[in-house]
Amino acid sequence: MNRQAFLFDLDGTLVDSVYQHVLAWHEALEREGIHLSIWRVHRRIGMSGGLLINLLLRETGMAIEPARIERIAAWHAEAYLRHANEISPLPGARDLLSALTMAQVPWAIATSSRMETARPTLDLIGVSPERDPIVTRDEVRHAKPDPDLFLAAAARVGVSIEQSTVVGDSVWDMLAAQRARALGVGLLSGGYGQEELERAGAYRVFADPADMLAHLDELGVR
Amino acid sequence: MNRQAFLFDLDGTLVDSVYQHVLAWHEALEREGIHLSIWRVHRRIGMSGGLLINLLLRETGMAIEPARIERIAAWHAEAYLRHANEISPLPGARDLLSALTMAQVPWAIATSSRMETARPTLDLIGVSPERDPIVTRDEVRHAKPDPDLFLAAAARVGVSIEQSTVVGDSVWDMLAAQRARALGVGLLSGGYGQEELERAGAYRVFADPADMLAHLDELGVR
Repeated sequence: MNRQAFLFDLDGTLVDSVYQHVLAWHEALEREGIHLSIWRVHRRIGMSGGLLINLLLRETGMAIEPARIERIAAWHAEAYLRHANEISPLPGARDLLSALTMAQVPWAIATSSRMETARPTLDLIGVSPERDPIVTRDEVRHAKPDPDLFLAAAARVGVSIEQSTVVGDSVWDMLAAQRARALGVGLLSGGYGQEELERAGAYRVFADPADMLAHLDELGVR
Repeated sequence: MNRQAFLFDLDGTLVDSVYQHVLAWHEALEREGIHLSIWRVHRRIGMSGGLLINLLLRETGMAIEPARIERIAAWHAEAYLRHANEISPLPGARDLLSALTMAQVPWAIATSSRMETARPTLDLIGVSPERDPIVTRDEVRHAKPDPDLFLAAAARVGVSIEQSTVVGDSVWDMLAAQRARALGVGLLSGGYGQEELERAGAYRVFADPADMLAHLDELGVR
């Protein structure tokens, strides 16, 4: 338990899918009669879908009913999967994971998505749920910004969370990293600003996986 | 020439159309074989379309040819207009313009878009190109971050630019405001972070038009 590990978020961190998720959530919320500006949806992406819906219902003063939450989540998945064929890996995503594998640095993926929505994007970066360590929403009680996903991911690769670095594009990843006592590395590829990530605890911010790969030695990888 | 005027950007400032513009540009660029992460497109939205294409071509090392620029711009317009029916006004947009009209404070709209793409969104906020002062890309030599659009808008309402406040959601609006010697007010409704707008010169940042309306007295409107 003395080596370091990298625990990656998926959407906006390894694959370029945040904007499709944003519009899919916006469409699902509109369908339920919840009218929210798109940037407000964007700033909630990356947290647990259930938490996102709770929060938005509370803000708009609508009743938080389980049937409504399930309906909105199902509409989001439907709208998102309709756009899944437009999604690309982020620059450097495959190379970064390969470089870590070559350097014998353990890595895992920890996503607030369910396997249903994550699977097509995992394929894009050559990651296999059968072979590689992936923790999805299905396996933990609470998703981000709770620390559960990252704690489970660190356990999966047998590295202590205090030796782990969380890599994510959203404020929720950085907050979950702090709650888990991991270091947080922010990527701009999800569309948050650099200062938003730093203010949420990122100790370093890179543009995207390619930029992080070019600076791996700053993160203690040798 | 001694009263103040407000010069508004349109997309992301008065109407919730930035994310549709982002995906439309991304689609148009992909169609030309230019592969760029979506967040990088987002951070260029609001500047002149021609400048945006130039910049992206230069970054990707592709030849900057007039025919290519026109083709990409036409594909963007086509993709954007396909989504025009999904676009809503931002909260408070109509009320803010009405409040200024009631207070006899002149206002104008200055957009990097052409009238073809701007017209459907102007309708949404009850603004008429026949009745209200609107300056579009068609009327000036250089769009944002050049100051021309805001200079033309101030001239249109007969207020000096030094007495004018530019309201926009993007870094390009704030830079154009500085170049024009106007004050800049940033809105978060286009999806930029607060610090990005402040760093580009915003002297005040609000969430959206409704939030700005609630704080109009901070801006000298009585």
